[in-house]
Amino acid sequence: MLDALFNPRGVAVIGASSKELHIGNRVIKNLIDFGYKGGIYPINPKADEIRGIKAYKSILDVEGPVDVAHMVIPAKFTPMAFEDCGKKGVKHIIINSGGFSEIGPEGAAIEDAFMEVARKYHIRVLGPNCQGIINSDPEMRAYCNFTFTFPEPGHISIVALSGGVAEVIHQGFSAMGVGTRIYASNGNACDITIPELIRYLGDDDKTRVIVTYVEGLKDPSTFMEVATKVAAKKPVLAMKAGRTREGAQAAASHTGGLAKEDIATDLIFKKAGIVDFRDEGELINAAAAFASQPIPHGNRVGIITNTGGPAVIGTDILVDAGLELPPLSAKTEGRLKAQLFPEAAVHNPVDVLATGTAEHYRACLDAMMDDDHFDCVLVNFVTPFFVDNDSIAREIVAVSRQQRKPIVCNLMTDRRQWAETVRILQDGGVPCFALPGEAARALAALVRYHRIRSREAGRVKKDARVDANRAREIISEASRAGRQMLSAEEAYRILEAYRIPVAEWRMADTVEEAVSMAEEIGFPVVVKADSASVVHKSDMGGVAVNLEDVEAVRSAVQKMADQISADDLRFFIQKFMPGGTEIIMGARAEEGLGHALMFGLGGIFVEVLKDVVFNLTPVTDADAKEMLTRIKGAALLDGVRGRKGVDRAAIEALICRLSQLLGDLPAIKEMDLNPVLAFETGVFVVDARIAI
Amino acid sequence: MLDALFNPRGVAVIGASSKELHIGNRVIKNLIDFGYKGGIYPINPKADEIRGIKAYKSILDVEGPVDVAHMVIPAKFTPMAFEDCGKKGVKHIIINSGGFSEIGPEGAAIEDAFMEVARKYHIRVLGPNCQGIINSDPEMRAYCNFTFTFPEPGHISIVALSGGVAEVIHQGFSAMGVGTRIYASNGNACDITIPELIRYLGDDDKTRVIVTYVEGLKDPSTFMEVATKVAAKKPVLAMKAGRTREGAQAAASHTGGLAKEDIATDLIFKKAGIVDFRDEGELINAAAAFASQPIPHGNRVGIITNTGGPAVIGTDILVDAGLELPPLSAKTEGRLKAQLFPEAAVHNPVDVLATGTAEHYRACLDAMMDDDHFDCVLVNFVTPFFVDNDSIAREIVAVSRQQRKPIVCNLMTDRRQWAETVRILQDGGVPCFALPGEAARALAALVRYHRIRSREAGRVKKDARVDANRAREIISEASRAGRQMLSAEEAYRILEAYRIPVAEWRMADTVEEAVSMAEEIGFPVVVKADSASVVHKSDMGGVAVNLEDVEAVRSAVQKMADQISADDLRFFIQKFMPGGTEIIMGARAEEGLGHALMFGLGGIFVEVLKDVVFNLTPVTDADAKEMLTRIKGAALLDGVRGRKGVDRAAIEALICRLSQLLGDLPAIKEMDLNPVLAFETGVFVVDARIAI
Repeated sequence: MLDALFNPRGVAVIGASSKELHIGNRVIKNLIDFGYKGGIYPINPKADEIRGIKAYKSILDVEGPVDVAHMVIPAKFTPMAFEDCGKKGVKHIIINSGGFSEIGPEGAAIEDAFMEVARKYHIRVLGPNCQGIINSDPEMRAYCNFTFTFPEPGHISIVALSGGVAEVIHQGFSAMGVGTRIYASNGNACDITIPELIRYLGDDDKTRVIVTYVEGLKDPSTFMEVATKVAAKKPVLAMKAGRTREGAQAAASHTGGLAKEDIATDLIFKKAGIVDFRDEGELINAAAAFASQPIPHGNRVGIITNTGGPAVIGTDILVDAGLELPPLSAKTEGRLKAQLFPEAAVHNPVDVLATGTAEHYRACLDAMMDDDHFDCVLVNFVTPFFVDNDSIAREIVAVSRQQRKPIVCNLMTDRRQWAETVRILQDGGVPCFALPGEAARALAALVRYHRIRSREAGRVKKDARVDANRAREIISEASRAGRQMLSAEEAYRILEAYRIPVAEWRMADTVEEAVSMAEEIGFPVVVKADSASVVHKSDMGGVAVNLEDVEAVRSAVQKMADQISADDLRFFIQKFMPGGTEIIMGARAEEGLGHALMFGLGGIFVEVLKDVVFNLTPVTDADAKEMLTRIKGAALLDGVRGRKGVDRAAIEALICRLSQLLGDLPAIKEMDLNPVLAFETGVFVVDARIAI
Repeated sequence: MLDALFNPRGVAVIGASSKELHIGNRVIKNLIDFGYKGGIYPINPKADEIRGIKAYKSILDVEGPVDVAHMVIPAKFTPMAFEDCGKKGVKHIIINSGGFSEIGPEGAAIEDAFMEVARKYHIRVLGPNCQGIINSDPEMRAYCNFTFTFPEPGHISIVALSGGVAEVIHQGFSAMGVGTRIYASNGNACDITIPELIRYLGDDDKTRVIVTYVEGLKDPSTFMEVATKVAAKKPVLAMKAGRTREGAQAAASHTGGLAKEDIATDLIFKKAGIVDFRDEGELINAAAAFASQPIPHGNRVGIITNTGGPAVIGTDILVDAGLELPPLSAKTEGRLKAQLFPEAAVHNPVDVLATGTAEHYRACLDAMMDDDHFDCVLVNFVTPFFVDNDSIAREIVAVSRQQRKPIVCNLMTDRRQWAETVRILQDGGVPCFALPGEAARALAALVRYHRIRSREAGRVKKDARVDANRAREIISEASRAGRQMLSAEEAYRILEAYRIPVAEWRMADTVEEAVSMAEEIGFPVVVKADSASVVHKSDMGGVAVNLEDVEAVRSAVQKMADQISADDLRFFIQKFMPGGTEIIMGARAEEGLGHALMFGLGGIFVEVLKDVVFNLTPVTDADAKEMLTRIKGAALLDGVRGRKGVDRAAIEALICRLSQLLGDLPAIKEMDLNPVLAFETGVFVVDARIAI
């Protein structure tokens, strides 16, 4: 569908200008200078030529095919210009100009107007208020964009709403001498979306890695669906900004959106299998490594170095990122002792010494490629004047070209004096970084993608014995009654419909009923006042725990009845279960995405340490298992200080059951199970709140 | 003392070589090419000239003054060569060659031999096994070093044992177009030390910022003393590598040292007021900002941008680092609304738009310099082709030169196309970074140094009423008896000598004595078996808590007496104090440094979350206060979930008292107070272990 956008046979620039500092001139200059292979058609009612190219009064005068019209005209003229484009058979329109939905309803109306024309003629639109596209393919070389960084052909493609950040990333690759393939920034995104662009790049064989930047997602479910599919085929690298309140405000001020800190985007990235970053530099470096290197099959790294300290820095970073530095196998050690200088350090890192030659590097590289203990290699290479650095570079390139295991290089040099060494490595596709930490982090990103690709997806478990209809009825009833908060009874009935274990309970209307129900349940019990008007029960004396006999229950319930004046006051009697480990679970509806399901340790852990983790529904059994390991206090689940561990399987099952419940009941806005008590055998929900 | 090392009137290269790839040739080439202002004297028994410069058979033949001799000769010849240098009146010798202490005792003996000669002639030695020095001062231009990066003159000085990392940092500045002043890498450091170099640079007025890299400290107390003094005058930026076990191993393998993960270096950095880094790139960028910018007076930052997304990224990073983005004052807002384009976003960040002119930038910069709500400014500047970027650069330079508040710039450009813009900013001393995150982190480092400089030092409190002699006697006695672990009685007596509150206790030898002592103390009590041979008391049934009456005590003590066969078995009876918040304190002797004092929350907090913080003794009252805020569970100290807060003042006083105790009793190797129970009023040590 988007093929003609990136591979247009001809490009008309509507609003082409003779003025050098006008975007309508720059786009033509960029098309010419970058060597565009198709026809360039400046459209200008007055000029005969622009930058030496014949200009046309109307796009309808152009004879050759025009797949892309690039508009640089005031917003109000766009609908009319779309008509001409439609008649000419234009397939895609890129609009650089602003003055559309980003300025308010007036501008949005213009977007609606041109989109009506676009639909009539089956034209797809990129923008408005966007930079445009670049395709560096030597067969095409289309630069329909007013920016100024000309990429070398390469395998990285970049898509983002924000042209500013996309361009920073693009400049990063250019400064490193790393090529890019396709670039697209779609601004207001009134038609062609980021997921659509990602899907296209997923199918583009020459794109090895996709890079994107977001400040929020317009259509999270489609993004998730597309990203999941594409990330399973090739690495998708992403960064989200606007994570802090202030950052979100800054984002809102330039996109006209609402300021909100969301956690959903992070969860989507995780679930979709995106390699996510918090640092744009780290993202750029990682992409450079993905562009030319294979994905490692594990996390074990061998380091080859000709200087000490930088290898120490690299080691720290790799280990922090969860990589391992295994020792050399006896065979590798033997090989290297025979081939390196006697003073060389034949451990991991291998130090070939500053005087190490090309043969020494080659010996190390070959040995690590052959040695099954290593999955990837980091080369620390400073360029001493007394060795043949170009030959060393050539050996690194030769081994990198074998594509057996990924190699990254920390090249410590003066790029002016050792320009040829740099050129050999760069042209040879060896990802080179100026700092050991950068090289180590890029390698760690490759390993991260390996982990994502090899993670167990697990199964979404569905228990056929649940009574979804009963649960839906309860919600419908509450909804018809205009209530947003379910009563305790309703909440527990829903949990029971989903076979979620709850501590035994009854609802009582009177003191005597409460007493007799407590006797049925068996002591000790908890009593809670239940009323739609009482939100903070414990503050109002509406909770009494560990009631050990009839008298205690009677007096507690009587006290509540005296203190709380509410017409709908009832009493919730529940088995008191001492000694369990408090955990909490919860859920929050995420627009267009199902729910974010939360799990954590209760009590002070959640209150002081915010020790909770999230996952988007549907949660698989593997996801549930992983959630239990992700909390900081995970060790508590296994028991510490003589306390017994808890029933992990039961907690995991509860998470899965909860996910099923939330999937069936999208009307649930918020849910709190706090606490859930976990015992050596079994878990029991002892307090539940559900908002619809 | 080191002045002649960095400003030598003449340099003799002993081991000067005619072979181009020899270090003895390269050093001469570097001296020539860098434009050294003093005399260059190649010493070579056979050559008449080297690189066109007259060579001498012996340094004694040189007529002019020789302040520095640069040796590139085999290790075994150095002592003899030192004799000649001594006779010639050489002040400093730099030894590039290896083959000394780093290879073992044989090499160390050679170091001893030449140092004997050095002392005789009052020669100071840099190295051996080192790179040497660079002084870029236009008056001197000394490059006594075999590396290849020629610095522009500047204000950053670099010192490190590890030439590899020092050179990476140096290359980083060079690549950014940021000058350096003095460079020194001292390898084996057999004479001139890192603290000595730092002290020299502290006194060097043209050094504005000192950068160092360490993998461990040879003489921590001197380092601390010097760094503390220097960091109070100018920023000292440092990074420690070898933080992970694997990194420490890698460090040990190239320095010949022992692999150890230490926390002491971090504590020294903190106490000395060093700005420390975990990322060498961040350190390089921060140094570039310190080199030209004033120190801010607070943490409030104003952002000026001409593109949206990068300002969002910058905002996130700044906020994460603890900086604030205050709103514009009404006055500033008014000024800017009158001066910028009507569509400009006049908030913080201020978006002047891509079309923003030099006047717009100047208006924003002036307004933020005038506005007391801002302490520093981050400029996000992409270079569109349609504005006059050079003029914008000139305005940024002009305001930066005023040195009113620090400015950093995220310059997003193609450095080839906008070379003049880059040059203007670079020559103008504006720290420019290619990524918004880099600029934000550099600015955050300036604020970090401001915080360090303005932090309250506090006072080391000494209580005159302690009985230090009594404590020393106890330790001496145990020491004489050959014991490394003090008995419970000894430990408590020491605490009492320092007026540290302990739960009331007695020592009993028999069951009946135990019972009567429990009665004296009052129930409930705890009983612990005490014997030098019983280390894990609770595992052996040697602890009984919450004994509520005579019978319980009798039976518990009898059981211990039956179960534990130890000749020195005694019974430690202590008041049982339920309900307090468990905290822990401890200490570990750090060689040459006093003790690392630990504070944290006890129980699961320390066991599961390792929630402890450290500080080096002596700990001031301000340090103690800060330690309480640094633990993750700090909120627990104030009370949560209806639990009452604890007596913070008492905990702080206990930390200070403990610091005094440790200062007086350096023989203490390890100390554990676990737990200490903290109540709403008061704290009590209820278990103490001291090892000497």
